[in-house]
Amino acid sequence: MTETSSAVIDAAALLAAELADAAGEVVRRYFRQSVEIIDKDDASPVTIADREAEAAMRRLIAARFPDHGVFGEEHGVERPDAPWVWVLDPIDGTKSFISGVPLFGTLIALLHEGRPVLGVLDQPISRERWLGGAGRPTTFNGQAVRTRACSELARATIFSTTPAMFDAVDRPRFDAVADAAKLVRYGADCYAYGLVASGFVDAVIEGSLKPYDYCAHVPIIEGAGGIVTDWQGRAPGLASDGRIIAAGDRALHARLIERLNH
Amino acid sequence: MTETSSAVIDAAALLAAELADAAGEVVRRYFRQSVEIIDKDDASPVTIADREAEAAMRRLIAARFPDHGVFGEEHGVERPDAPWVWVLDPIDGTKSFISGVPLFGTLIALLHEGRPVLGVLDQPISRERWLGGAGRPTTFNGQAVRTRACSELARATIFSTTPAMFDAVDRPRFDAVADAAKLVRYGADCYAYGLVASGFVDAVIEGSLKPYDYCAHVPIIEGAGGIVTDWQGRAPGLASDGRIIAAGDRALHARLIERLNH
Repeated sequence: MTETSSAVIDAAALLAAELADAAGEVVRRYFRQSVEIIDKDDASPVTIADREAEAAMRRLIAARFPDHGVFGEEHGVERPDAPWVWVLDPIDGTKSFISGVPLFGTLIALLHEGRPVLGVLDQPISRERWLGGAGRPTTFNGQAVRTRACSELARATIFSTTPAMFDAVDRPRFDAVADAAKLVRYGADCYAYGLVASGFVDAVIEGSLKPYDYCAHVPIIEGAGGIVTDWQGRAPGLASDGRIIAAGDRALHARLIERLNH
Repeated sequence: MTETSSAVIDAAALLAAELADAAGEVVRRYFRQSVEIIDKDDASPVTIADREAEAAMRRLIAARFPDHGVFGEEHGVERPDAPWVWVLDPIDGTKSFISGVPLFGTLIALLHEGRPVLGVLDQPISRERWLGGAGRPTTFNGQAVRTRACSELARATIFSTTPAMFDAVDRPRFDAVADAAKLVRYGADCYAYGLVASGFVDAVIEGSLKPYDYCAHVPIIEGAGGIVTDWQGRAPGLASDGRIIAAGDRALHARLIERLNH
């Protein structure tokens, strides 16, 4: 990484915190209120909160870095070929949000030449925030965090949003890994990735994700000592197929890759 | 209900709040700390926090109501044949607790002649508390709450801790209901029952539960306008088989009973 890139990441980290603050303000206003649920083409529940929160973040990015690209879940893509591209999910875990479960989060990533170099995971109700940047230690509410050592699948706690997120080919692969793990838990959405960074969960295995669902987790988990890849072990980017493994321990990660492709 | 019983419930509701405070103090001290995990015979993770929190609650009950029975997850049964029996689960959702997920809760129920007449569900990290008593409106942090109307399964949000909690006979029955629901979510433990009482979730369907996992939910959900039964539609008590349906709308509840026994 060049000195210039590093300076951009430092400045972007400050902006990312402002984006999370702005999104959180919108989200808190709508949480556990009666919110009109609009059914998008893909049938995912999208709320007014989602749209307002992303619009607030886009305004701040446009004011501070007008030449940066933006790829958001709700309001589409602008300047995708720019060297720096922000990837935004105002409410990751909309199904948790509309059910009143405070494990959803605002996900903010900054990509440089296609590689995630900055990530924020913010839970606006419990006011918990993970921030990771390339070459920097990941923080949780300002305190450095580390993943925990766990090289054996039989000792591992593994999270996934729902077993229904895997297709007919991947489901038996996931189930075989789940059967061999110590503990498998569902339903924590993006919050589970934060728990990997903080050393309370060993891995998250998911499928059918979009770039705004996983890009932020890469710098967060890697800056805490872990690793995030696709199911083939490749670094995730905008073109990944949406099958993601995040692990706190690299030896466990290698075992998961091997098992999932067995 | 006699006047005497009603007076006992009023006094017990005050004590139940003290029990939840005492348990919460213990639980907050151990949450996200390194806690030795002891494997019980049934392989569920039991922590020091569990045991200390239950002991604290038992001391308070013994001081205030020495003739009441107590049935706790960790320290067993005393005076089970007393007219009034407290049923305690210091940390319902121990797997969430040890994974750092703040959806576990302290469950406190008081049974009169075998029927749950008082219930507390307390989340000590987010400091959220549901309290329900027979003939009284259920409260969430002191404010009255109501379940929401939802008579159609196709419009319903249904929670369950994990699909792995159903046996080989019940699993396909649950799956058939899940396939027909609008939304199915896992992993929220006891917190999901609170969300039914508050009108954000329509039903919880579970299996393999113990009395300390479900007794508290009966007065909480019924005092908010819903209903809790076993899968045959019978009122739950200490002798229930551990298969539980909690629903916010009685018409939905009837449909679920019919479908699960189809």
